[in-house]
Amino acid sequence: MPTRPHFVERIAVGRYQDEVQHPGAIKAFVAEFISTLIFVFAGQGSGMAFTKLTDGAANTPAGLVAAALAHAFGLFVAVSIAANISGGHVNPAVTFGAFVGGNITLLRGIFYIIAQLLGSVVACLLLLFSTGGLVSVWNAFVFEIVMTFGLVYTVYATAVDPKKGDIGTIAPIAIGFIVGANILAGGAFTGASMNPAVAFGPAVVSWDWTNHWVYWAGPIIGGGFAGLIYELIFIGRSHEPLAGSEF
Amino acid sequence: MPTRPHFVERIAVGRYQDEVQHPGAIKAFVAEFISTLIFVFAGQGSGMAFTKLTDGAANTPAGLVAAALAHAFGLFVAVSIAANISGGHVNPAVTFGAFVGGNITLLRGIFYIIAQLLGSVVACLLLLFSTGGLVSVWNAFVFEIVMTFGLVYTVYATAVDPKKGDIGTIAPIAIGFIVGANILAGGAFTGASMNPAVAFGPAVVSWDWTNHWVYWAGPIIGGGFAGLIYELIFIGRSHEPLAGSEF
Amino acid sequence: MPTRPHFVERIAVGRYQDEVQHPGAIKAFVAEFISTLIFVFAGQGSGMAFTKLTDGAANTPAGLVAAALAHAFGLFVAVSIAANISGGHVNPAVTFGAFVGGNITLLRGIFYIIAQLLGSVVACLLLLFSTGGLVSVWNAFVFEIVMTFGLVYTVYATAVDPKKGDIGTIAPIAIGFIVGANILAGGAFTGASMNPAVAFGPAVVSWDWTNHWVYWAGPIIGGGFAGLIYELIFIGRSHEPLAGSEF
Amino acid sequence: MPTRPHFVERIAVGRYQDEVQHPGAIKAFVAEFISTLIFVFAGQGSGMAFTKLTDGAANTPAGLVAAALAHAFGLFVAVSIAANISGGHVNPAVTFGAFVGGNITLLRGIFYIIAQLLGSVVACLLLLFSTGGLVSVWNAFVFEIVMTFGLVYTVYATAVDPKKGDIGTIAPIAIGFIVGANILAGGAFTGASMNPAVAFGPAVVSWDWTNHWVYWAGPIIGGGFAGLIYELIFIGRSHEPLAGSEF
Repeated sequence: MPTRPHFVERIAVGRYQDEVQHPGAIKAFVAEFISTLIFVFAGQGSGMAFTKLTDGAANTPAGLVAAALAHAFGLFVAVSIAANISGGHVNPAVTFGAFVGGNITLLRGIFYIIAQLLGSVVACLLLLFSTGGLVSVWNAFVFEIVMTFGLVYTVYATAVDPKKGDIGTIAPIAIGFIVGANILAGGAFTGASMNPAVAFGPAVVSWDWTNHWVYWAGPIIGGGFAGLIYELIFIGRSHEPLAGSEF
Repeated sequence: MPTRPHFVERIAVGRYQDEVQHPGAIKAFVAEFISTLIFVFAGQGSGMAFTKLTDGAANTPAGLVAAALAHAFGLFVAVSIAANISGGHVNPAVTFGAFVGGNITLLRGIFYIIAQLLGSVVACLLLLFSTGGLVSVWNAFVFEIVMTFGLVYTVYATAVDPKKGDIGTIAPIAIGFIVGANILAGGAFTGASMNPAVAFGPAVVSWDWTNHWVYWAGPIIGGGFAGLIYELIFIGRSHEPLAGSEF
Repeated sequence: MPTRPHFVERIAVGRYQDEVQHPGAIKAFVAEFISTLIFVFAGQGSGMAFTKLTDGAANTPAGLVAAALAHAFGLFVAVSIAANISGGHVNPAVTFGAFVGGNITLLRGIFYIIAQLLGSVVACLLLLFSTGGLVSVWNAFVFEIVMTFGLVYTVYATAVDPKKGDIGTIAPIAIGFIVGANILAGGAFTGASMNPAVAFGPAVVSWDWTNHWVYWAGPIIGGGFAGLIYELIFIGRSHEPLAGSEF
Repeated sequence: MPTRPHFVERIAVGRYQDEVQHPGAIKAFVAEFISTLIFVFAGQGSGMAFTKLTDGAANTPAGLVAAALAHAFGLFVAVSIAANISGGHVNPAVTFGAFVGGNITLLRGIFYIIAQLLGSVVACLLLLFSTGGLVSVWNAFVFEIVMTFGLVYTVYATAVDPKKGDIGTIAPIAIGFIVGANILAGGAFTGASMNPAVAFGPAVVSWDWTNHWVYWAGPIIGGGFAGLIYELIFIGRSHEPLAGSEF
């Protein structure tokens, strides 16, 4: 068989256990789950943002542009962050197309699709939860956690991960665009800060600290969680303590 | 002759048969046909979407942005997916410019242009067909097939194909942006899902399954077809069965 | 002196003749002229398009987005196509910044700035000419020539040129985005086709051939001219006739 | 410990002095400060531009697109220009995520966050100053200085710096997009030229030189300052005089 590039499963070793229980397989399912979650959260959220901003009016060219950018940026990032782990399908049709072309086994493909569907459902539940009832400070809090999780996960997958490969070349674009995608979803509901520094400067200059804690607590929780699970699941090293970390 | 980069024909061997009947030549014509089809479908479709959303009003800055992004994203992808096969001209003016500069022969250039014109005509017929009459579920079905074909073809050309070369570095951008381009065309007519998972999450959370089959059947058919023909025409290997595919 | 990357002049050989008469220097001035022309044509044209579409209304967020994208896409392309020839300054402030940092000599910098200013003036004259009086078919003709020149020049500089280097990796993005930038300028005045195939498909399907020749003649002239001068000035090889070109 | 890629601190040598006083550490803090300044200036400025253009109306889909692009483009550039110096965090949540994953020490992380917060505050003060009172020519002057500083700094960090590495591949995109981001902030207040050539062409053709000096003085000051400090701080070479610079 000729060399297969990174899109393709790497562990076609032909026994059930290996195919879906092998650590590499589990990682791939988790990667598909998280990528689809991040993609659907931004894409679906942008549709809800349009509805909110226009009180449910019919779509417009500006709304179409917003939806197109949210999906384009979101999928670009979702593919980038899973490319080296699962191939970055993020889509049952892509998995099916890969299967038809002989690039993934049926069983593994089914698990991919299950992970993608789960990611989509969880994304929609999170959107329901974070836009439900009044757009209160708690909604903003959930939004910030989820969106910053996506941002810091993207930083890890495209820039920190030693196995990032060619994806590293476009890492800054991915990091910038996940923020763009998330603003198209969350910007209509919260400040969509994902970054305490972004909230801090205006707060200092206007000396307005209302709900300021949200823009620290949300990003810190989401970002810390992303760093933790990416290291544990995908990098998986036991750190020797970094020199100086005792400070 | 100095080394010629990938844009340029690779088979200038100077006999009629080789030039337009050689397997590489046939592949190049097919690649130009499909790339132009995908590009024109998105670009032309975005103009029809504007007309539909505004009931035929005069153009606006937002409409111009939509058209610009549909063409920019669509052409970027169209060039990417053909770059390593035909050079990614997607445009008789480019082919003519290549001919003037001595980078393609007259005969081969004429075949390129014919393929491009055919691709454009077929794109317009598909648009006519998929927006004709009422925007029924069958229109959506055709839209999903065509658009997902473009998406999965892009995945194959930029990420799966062992000959993808440098294009692999920007594959995630191309994959994200073909979805953006297609939403600018199809988003005004159907859900422009191209992805069953994108339709599944909202269906579960709202428990609304109306026409849900369209967002499975369309993408599965378009995606499967793309995987099949890309493997057969452009990768062209006879697979040994993947281990485990019997599951 | 440490290794200097491609942004930097390569011919600092310290005599007047070498610095501004050396073939490499002349090429650099031409590259700065053409890049600035293409950039200003798109950027300035997008502002005129807004004025036309809105009858001179005050700016709006959508207008700001259009201007931002026209400049972002246009400058990205302008820098790409000159990067390996002149460093891609396209801006007297960049040239001055390079001079202050010791990366270009004063004399050479002055010639760069003159080339940039000339490029900007010619771009504005072309815009004046192609939008002057009624927006007739002849205006469209000039627009198509100028815009397709930019497109095919971009194809040559980023994909055909054997010295393209790393720029080749992002060539498809540059090729797509120059079309996006040009549509933001020309889309309000002409069809902004830059591509006969884009005009051909709709003409066939609607069987409407009014002014169709413009979308062949303009792109063919602009594209052919770009191929010719890029080969002559920047690649500068005397071709052996390509096998088969007698067909 | 496995090889760590460029995102990660490079000087974990474990003594207080090294960690925060080492020249590399100081450079990293400066890089985080400048990157956050540039990012917040564009992002926050785009919000103020929306308010100005719409007289403080509620957000709209077009406004959301403007904000998303300003932040996406701005953060992409901010990460790019700091990637090889500090890792390009530009965000306390990213720094915290890096700390949790063991990729930065606590002490160094705290200094990063302080630099980021300072950058954000200074950006907001500059915005306050440059939009304060009437939008006079002096406001435009400050805007041009700050925005051209960001542009030329980007040119240096992504294209001139001998240590630019992989970032060089996407340098033209970064250079184009910082201009796009800045137009979304400054375009509503000044011409957002950042480029004397962009102002020169229209001035010649319309023979209108009102306030023309602003579009030379601002960019020259901002661009020259960027070239100077980037060379001094981040490249840090003592130039031998370039041949020919006596002209």
